[in-house]
Amino acid sequence: MYVSSYQARALLESAEAKARELEVPVNIVVLDAGGHLKAFHRMDGAVLASIDIAMRKAKTAALFECNSEDIWEFCKPGAAAPGLELTNGGLAPYGGGIALKCPNGVTAGAVGVSGGSIQQDMEIAQAALATFEAMLG
Amino acid sequence: MYVSSYQARALLESAEAKARELEVPVNIVVLDAGGHLKAFHRMDGAVLASIDIAMRKAKTAALFECNSEDIWEFCKPGAAAPGLELTNGGLAPYGGGIALKCPNGVTAGAVGVSGGSIQQDMEIAQAALATFEAMLG
Amino acid sequence: MYVSSYQARALLESAEAKARELEVPVNIVVLDAGGHLKAFHRMDGAVLASIDIAMRKAKTAALFECNSEDIWEFCKPGAAAPGLELTNGGLAPYGGGIALKCPNGVTAGAVGVSGGSIQQDMEIAQAALATFEAMLG
Amino acid sequence: MYVSSYQARALLESAEAKARELEVPVNIVVLDAGGHLKAFHRMDGAVLASIDIAMRKAKTAALFECNSEDIWEFCKPGAAAPGLELTNGGLAPYGGGIALKCPNGVTAGAVGVSGGSIQQDMEIAQAALATFEAMLG
Repeated sequence: MYVSSYQARALLESAEAKARELEVPVNIVVLDAGGHLKAFHRMDGAVLASIDIAMRKAKTAALFECNSEDIWEFCKPGAAAPGLELTNGGLAPYGGGIALKCPNGVTAGAVGVSGGSIQQDMEIAQAALATFEAMLG
Repeated sequence: MYVSSYQARALLESAEAKARELEVPVNIVVLDAGGHLKAFHRMDGAVLASIDIAMRKAKTAALFECNSEDIWEFCKPGAAAPGLELTNGGLAPYGGGIALKCPNGVTAGAVGVSGGSIQQDMEIAQAALATFEAMLG
Repeated sequence: MYVSSYQARALLESAEAKARELEVPVNIVVLDAGGHLKAFHRMDGAVLASIDIAMRKAKTAALFECNSEDIWEFCKPGAAAPGLELTNGGLAPYGGGIALKCPNGVTAGAVGVSGGSIQQDMEIAQAALATFEAMLG
Repeated sequence: MYVSSYQARALLESAEAKARELEVPVNIVVLDAGGHLKAFHRMDGAVLASIDIAMRKAKTAALFECNSEDIWEFCKPGAAAPGLELTNGGLAPYGGGIALKCPNGVTAGAVGVSGGSIQQDMEIAQAALATFEAMLG
């Protein structure tokens, strides 16, 4: 299953609502399970540098089917796969990217958020995930 | 002036409404005047190859401040600038990209559409432009 | 507001005057708010490697709307965003890049300096910023 | 011999004066003989796409030690080196790039201009060359 237009739009909306609540302008990326762009929105005031960062977080989550920060365990100093973050055109091994998983475990896509603190970005991405899961019923 | 979040969302909506009317799923890109991504939507059923094409059309329109197809006059066989389409990371010198110009002539951004025939892509991009101009009042 | 030709020339001149005072040849980059090159000067004797470094410092400042060294807090060992310096085509998270901000907080562009010590580069970039602010009135 | 800061500044000034006379805003690039950036100026109103084009014209002239349009003879349809324009990171085999040659035939650098018609760009680059030659005495 791939994230649909209807879902992608709802994910952007819920992420943006959370960002406004936190009073932080962010970039929000929705990718499908193949890592291809499905939807994107840059809120007014979000810094330009965060476009690429949000893209990388979402890509990291989509291609590994996990949370972006989970990758850090494999590439942090002393870990098993040094330089892992340089693969796939460059990953973002820190919070703000979340895989969108269906109840059967299949990954339908990923969301990536950047523009606030890591904690804020993660909270905003979680809001999108919650909407995704609620829509699945 | 830069295209705002409010405008970008309205442009996506009007482009998508036109695409549904034409019964062709497309990718729709909105860039700011600096060529940076502001908003994006891939309609269900649009082919993946059209993501990059829509991006290039919008980039061509934003960076040259014209319609994407206008560039063909400069790089078509026998014209003055052979290979112009290879500059700026690769342009798309055919229809579907339109610069969003304010009444004072300043470019606020660009829209790019891909997924249908060139004629359909142009018509859908024109719908977005019409919305942009209507919003300016 | 974007940094103008008139401003860009004045920024180069004041940076170069400071560099001559410090007796260190440097590269000086002026970008607009979208991160696009507006003006550049390489003083005689500046090493070639510093061209790219000055460009990255200015890009870092323009795209994050801050001083380039501020980024280090996010990507230094143990910080929240490891590898952040690898985003956006490669950043320079150390001193010498400064965002040019208007009194209303809007970023008009950025300046980047490289060729001397980090301390010298920062001092030279500060001279450009002072000129920018003086020109605003 | 390499083009000096003093010369580069004079070249930018004469090119810009010619561009103002022709009433066309352009990007002006000065490279040294190694193809490395020495000076750059984007006049207010020049389209962003022309930054890269001016860079490529100057690179073409610097690396081949000729006028950029001379390369077309080698890569035009039916000529001996098809695809030559794709080498060196992408060339611009049309007018607006000129090698700066000393009386002894040594190339000191190159100038590249983009933003107007090919004819205007060539005329502006010629103004820079004339200044270079006048300064040599």
